[in-house]
Amino acid sequence: MVAVIPERVVDSNLASGLDADIDAAVHRHVEDVLARYLAARRADLPELARTFAAAVDTLSDFALRGGKRIRPTFAWWGWRAAGGEASGPRADAVLTAVSALELIQTCALVHDDLMDASELRRGRPTVHVRFTEAHRAGGWLGEPERFGMAAAILLGDLALAWADDMFESAPLTAEMRAAARGPWRAMRAEMFAGQYLDVLAQAEGDESEDRALGVARLKTAAYTVERPLHMGVAFAGAGQGTVDAVRTFGTDIGVAFQLRDDLLGVYGDTEVTGKPAGDDLREGKRTLLVSLGLSRAALAGRHADADLLRAALGDPDLAPDTIERVRALMVEVGAVDELERRIEVLTSSAMAALDASGLAEPGRTRLADLAVAATRRDR
Amino acid sequence: MVAVIPERVVDSNLASGLDADIDAAVHRHVEDVLARYLAARRADLPELARTFAAAVDTLSDFALRGGKRIRPTFAWWGWRAAGGEASGPRADAVLTAVSALELIQTCALVHDDLMDASELRRGRPTVHVRFTEAHRAGGWLGEPERFGMAAAILLGDLALAWADDMFESAPLTAEMRAAARGPWRAMRAEMFAGQYLDVLAQAEGDESEDRALGVARLKTAAYTVERPLHMGVAFAGAGQGTVDAVRTFGTDIGVAFQLRDDLLGVYGDTEVTGKPAGDDLREGKRTLLVSLGLSRAALAGRHADADLLRAALGDPDLAPDTIERVRALMVEVGAVDELERRIEVLTSSAMAALDASGLAEPGRTRLADLAVAATRRDR
Repeated sequence: MVAVIPERVVDSNLASGLDADIDAAVHRHVEDVLARYLAARRADLPELARTFAAAVDTLSDFALRGGKRIRPTFAWWGWRAAGGEASGPRADAVLTAVSALELIQTCALVHDDLMDASELRRGRPTVHVRFTEAHRAGGWLGEPERFGMAAAILLGDLALAWADDMFESAPLTAEMRAAARGPWRAMRAEMFAGQYLDVLAQAEGDESEDRALGVARLKTAAYTVERPLHMGVAFAGAGQGTVDAVRTFGTDIGVAFQLRDDLLGVYGDTEVTGKPAGDDLREGKRTLLVSLGLSRAALAGRHADADLLRAALGDPDLAPDTIERVRALMVEVGAVDELERRIEVLTSSAMAALDASGLAEPGRTRLADLAVAATRRDR
Repeated sequence: MVAVIPERVVDSNLASGLDADIDAAVHRHVEDVLARYLAARRADLPELARTFAAAVDTLSDFALRGGKRIRPTFAWWGWRAAGGEASGPRADAVLTAVSALELIQTCALVHDDLMDASELRRGRPTVHVRFTEAHRAGGWLGEPERFGMAAAILLGDLALAWADDMFESAPLTAEMRAAARGPWRAMRAEMFAGQYLDVLAQAEGDESEDRALGVARLKTAAYTVERPLHMGVAFAGAGQGTVDAVRTFGTDIGVAFQLRDDLLGVYGDTEVTGKPAGDDLREGKRTLLVSLGLSRAALAGRHADADLLRAALGDPDLAPDTIERVRALMVEVGAVDELERRIEVLTSSAMAALDASGLAEPGRTRLADLAVAATRRDR
């Protein structure tokens, strides 16, 4: 007879004992709750899985160090703006539930870095690279890259499963949970759909604006702003009018956020982005910036320049001076100005939706501040 | 302003309208419920994600064609054996919840095939291979293998997220859901832990019996038999005595099941397993069979034979005659007999736990039948 694994209990009261003023530091409270959850789940692992626990430490380290916690923050302020309390048992439960968004993001980043073969994230080696290097350092059997891939796939999967467990562990009322289930479900499917469309657009060499906007819509707007906000207001029992207003606000701000990200991916400072310069070009990302760059170069009869840009996309050995030429080109044909203009228009329509929403203070002002922070030049 | 994605509603009554006699064909009922769920979630995808819906069809096809539905079947008979009804609203809800186990398995298989670089599953191309081939056929940009990898990662992730959504969509009572949450949570973590230990053992070239048994314990026993059964009896409100009994039964049968699988991985007929002959050797799997083969060859002073086996493990170009020599070796040193003996011992202790469990008929007999089917030679 083989011994069974002893039962352990997960503490569902993750937010207890934290100081009460969540509003003053959402970011820190999210990290505290997340750290407690990860520690509890690690302690939960059976004795048999000791070596796995060491791998989980790498995952936790990745999840806890760095990151803007933008999704839980939008969700929290959605809750507050729709009338949710700043403290107390319901607020604590919401804090736990929205912190689970960070575990979905952990899965997305770990898997995304693997798919893109990215070496760095937040200025440090990515998860698959860390395990590849451990394999190499240990002189183990088989290909180091294959081991790194397997570890990253499994740890990303674990983060995704734990995201659901954490969401379900939050001591929400049945009504709160039922109301938030819709956006929680939609958000994950929309994120994977957006990621797939992104990869497919790169493969097909799609140059259309529609595709670039569709990816931004699903992968960033729905996943990063709209659905977290939708969840937040749903916890507070918001009616259809409020839901519609925050979804419109979130969609517009989310797309604007992606357009800003597109610009940073090409023009951003490595010190700030934590990624090598021109990484989006090297990866062949089919962003709206690229789409506009290509169409405007063609319109201006600059066909050789358009071909230069096309050739740069997805070139793993992209030279610094080619990156410079591409950067200059996209400024010259007006693609950068057009993107800035669109970011402005989207931010304005988002703010109009927020103004008309009837949301409560201080949530409403904080959402406006978040919108500005997510889309401004020096982000 | 960017348009928001219209809301859609998931039908939670997946089991309604099926004929009532679930006991007579658990397998078919699971597939019906799963097919309905997948169709509903596909319809749920936003219009923007049309090309993703086509990819989801590949995933659904993979999930619905073939597979023994062993996990939901154990869970269903756990429910019945602990006193759960054969039909009615509670039974329908349990059927939906246990069918969600198949979506976890879909994630596990899609990701596992990618990690192992397996070409075939159930006699057909694996998911990453299908997308690699689509890329190649389309003459798309970038490496076909990289596209296949990305699609398999994202579709596996989606299956895992949908598993949780499906489990949560089952109209269980609050007590039933709360009781089953523990095994549901444990099962997923144990499965990923077991997969990681398996990959690590291959990389480290671990030859110990303990490690091989630890992998079998977590990756197969906990995930495939013990936790599904635990969930099933938990839905029925089983007390600690019953839970302990089915966990012991499930652990022993689960390990025996893995030992049988180890034998099939080396001696199995391609027609039956759907995988190339000797695939486990080629992948370098550190099974108990391999561990016993190595230790017994050493004990018998057959060091050259042990080295032959060691060299065969993980050799992607393993020749048919080497496979034959390894097969003969493991019979000669008694590793195969020892494995058969252990399967027998484990099956006996499992049956003793079942006999002492006080579980109800017909569930108890059906569990005994399942145990025999899972561990017999001609499986």
